[in-house]
Amino acid sequence: MLKINANYLELQGSYLFSTIAKKVREFTAANPDKKIIRLGIGDVTQPLTPTIIKALHDSVDEMAHKETFRGYAPDLGYDFLRNAIADNDYKARGCNVAADEIFVSDGAKCDSGNIQELFDPSNRIAVCDPVYPVYVDSNVMAGRAGKFDAATGRYSRVIYMPCLRENNFLPQFPAEIPDMIYLCFPNNPTGSTITKAELQKWVDYANENGAVLIYDAAYEAYIRDEDVPHSVYECDGARTCAIELRSFSKNAGFTGVRLGFTVIPKDLVRDGVAIHTLWARRHSTKYNGAPYIVQKAGEAVYSEEGKKEIRGLVDYYMRNAATILKGLSDAGYEVSGGKNAPYIWLKTPGSMTSWEFFDYLLDKANVVGTPGAGFGPSGEGYFRLTAFGDYEATVEAIERIRNL
Amino acid sequence: MLKINANYLELQGSYLFSTIAKKVREFTAANPDKKIIRLGIGDVTQPLTPTIIKALHDSVDEMAHKETFRGYAPDLGYDFLRNAIADNDYKARGCNVAADEIFVSDGAKCDSGNIQELFDPSNRIAVCDPVYPVYVDSNVMAGRAGKFDAATGRYSRVIYMPCLRENNFLPQFPAEIPDMIYLCFPNNPTGSTITKAELQKWVDYANENGAVLIYDAAYEAYIRDEDVPHSVYECDGARTCAIELRSFSKNAGFTGVRLGFTVIPKDLVRDGVAIHTLWARRHSTKYNGAPYIVQKAGEAVYSEEGKKEIRGLVDYYMRNAATILKGLSDAGYEVSGGKNAPYIWLKTPGSMTSWEFFDYLLDKANVVGTPGAGFGPSGEGYFRLTAFGDYEATVEAIERIRNL
Repeated sequence: MLKINANYLELQGSYLFSTIAKKVREFTAANPDKKIIRLGIGDVTQPLTPTIIKALHDSVDEMAHKETFRGYAPDLGYDFLRNAIADNDYKARGCNVAADEIFVSDGAKCDSGNIQELFDPSNRIAVCDPVYPVYVDSNVMAGRAGKFDAATGRYSRVIYMPCLRENNFLPQFPAEIPDMIYLCFPNNPTGSTITKAELQKWVDYANENGAVLIYDAAYEAYIRDEDVPHSVYECDGARTCAIELRSFSKNAGFTGVRLGFTVIPKDLVRDGVAIHTLWARRHSTKYNGAPYIVQKAGEAVYSEEGKKEIRGLVDYYMRNAATILKGLSDAGYEVSGGKNAPYIWLKTPGSMTSWEFFDYLLDKANVVGTPGAGFGPSGEGYFRLTAFGDYEATVEAIERIRNL
Repeated sequence: MLKINANYLELQGSYLFSTIAKKVREFTAANPDKKIIRLGIGDVTQPLTPTIIKALHDSVDEMAHKETFRGYAPDLGYDFLRNAIADNDYKARGCNVAADEIFVSDGAKCDSGNIQELFDPSNRIAVCDPVYPVYVDSNVMAGRAGKFDAATGRYSRVIYMPCLRENNFLPQFPAEIPDMIYLCFPNNPTGSTITKAELQKWVDYANENGAVLIYDAAYEAYIRDEDVPHSVYECDGARTCAIELRSFSKNAGFTGVRLGFTVIPKDLVRDGVAIHTLWARRHSTKYNGAPYIVQKAGEAVYSEEGKKEIRGLVDYYMRNAATILKGLSDAGYEVSGGKNAPYIWLKTPGSMTSWEFFDYLLDKANVVGTPGAGFGPSGEGYFRLTAFGDYEATVEAIERIRNL
């Protein structure tokens, strides 16, 4: 008699963004005349740039002819893309990452959900609180999180690192030593950043304790300040403890195109086994490569024209971030993030919970944001707005909020 | 101190097709003048058809404009594609499958590797022997397979169902009752098929024993005979026991485009839980949807023009299958499959092992096939050739083999 994976029953509610989508659908159905502005889910709004579009058309044409048609991609990605990544994202920044340490995938969400598979269910994970839900939920599904305690909003075996105003929304070393440490900088959801010196401490900590750092750098394109690292491999010793996740979603607008990659240095060895070989085996067994046309689009991101266009896209969204920051700040809200990140983290007014503020904003201003509590108990009393909207819509949303 | 997932250490060798690719690379490097013909890996060779190419170009153009740009896809797939699948693959064949029971993905390989996650590690799996390696390897990674015994080539907790000449390469009910039963028809690698009456017995068996059937129908487009079912849902009671996996790789040539889907009827309940809700939760947590442009290409497969073109593609490959069958049969080889499937299964000559025959064919005829032993111990002494080659190359490959 078949048994289901009972770990799934420990999951709390539905996936955060599915819940939000449902609430918005219901509101829209009840209020068809209201014009909703979405600054909730981190989805981009601006079209793909001309160089990317051209690469897609060109590669589609290749697929139309026997001589240039491409079937299965190489398990770990096409060399043309892995080389472009190694050169531009790593070599150019002085990071020692080889092309064959880069695993191309269909996005950082899949990779951040799947990476935990390489490790034993007995390992303890540490996450920031608030945190991107996928890190926790994928570990719940694997039985690594223990039991959920409704009173605290926490899982018994997860080590939470509260990121609060008092510590500039940065995690502190936890009392218990974790085996797998998830860090995301620039941070989702708080928009906070870490300096290279601070990140170096985490790399040293992981090496000292035999832990693995899972470093999510999906938002590195938004970094403006000099002392904020773009990659964990800017730190000494990261090759022996860190895995890095990257995405094309937020820099090049690939949320609906699907492309990302994971870096696993060959020097990262635990229990005498190179983690690189485990991930390679997982990729070749359970994955079949990103589409050729999408990998060609990814390559175009690194062309000179592509880079210029992508900078323009990021600048566009960062103008939104500045608009939100200034508008809300002028209106008396307590805000952070938004300077090296596309997320603005704001304190809900008065004693409002974050879901109360969600409903209030949706109802009164027809603006959709994301309740901080959806990212973990320390997110309660906070609210996330994203800079990925249309500029005009963002200006209007902030006007509406100011007029409440 | 981090522990790795030690189940990975139970995996045998590298993934079959990676090993073959490596052998071919080495041969080519040593013999740069030899023209290799590949009838090994099941990769297609013919270009995408005009209707698909047009759908790709059109949807790429949509991505270039703010008004028509698409970001994140709906978690489970766009309705336009799920409706087209429900209407064409199921309703048109009298199968009761609703659009919201269809989960769009980036391919059947990922789905067939990931589906086991929904079930407890204590479940026993049953697989055909020989078998598509992903079913077994993904269960090894999850700790469901037990220990590997080099003497028998088998895992201690896997229930093997030998598919041999004596039983027309069809599995028999095993002595021990399994919890998860993997079936693939038309079969990879043997090219054998199952009648609706025979499949009905498996559906009844699964229902009687509370097992789940994982039915891989990736090759259904190759079915020619009337009494061969295209879907497990043609059988009574399949809605309470069966999951079906489908692919666009082999009918529409999407091996490098990546699109597939999984059907989980809402009536499939175990331990009081609808498996549909578990897979929906997995999709929304660890997956981010197939690219919009790829889903539009999938929709085009179901247009009238698309269907006509796809039939042409399948006919092209089936002409190859007939060529291989006749050529090898005339040359005195014992062959099967190839009538409702793109795979031809042949007995290796004399006492040759299947890897010996692989090396022999590569060396003497410069033809690449797949050793039967790579699919499991009962595949020893057999060899798989695929019909996915170029027609002229296939004719030449068979000529070369006949002249050995």
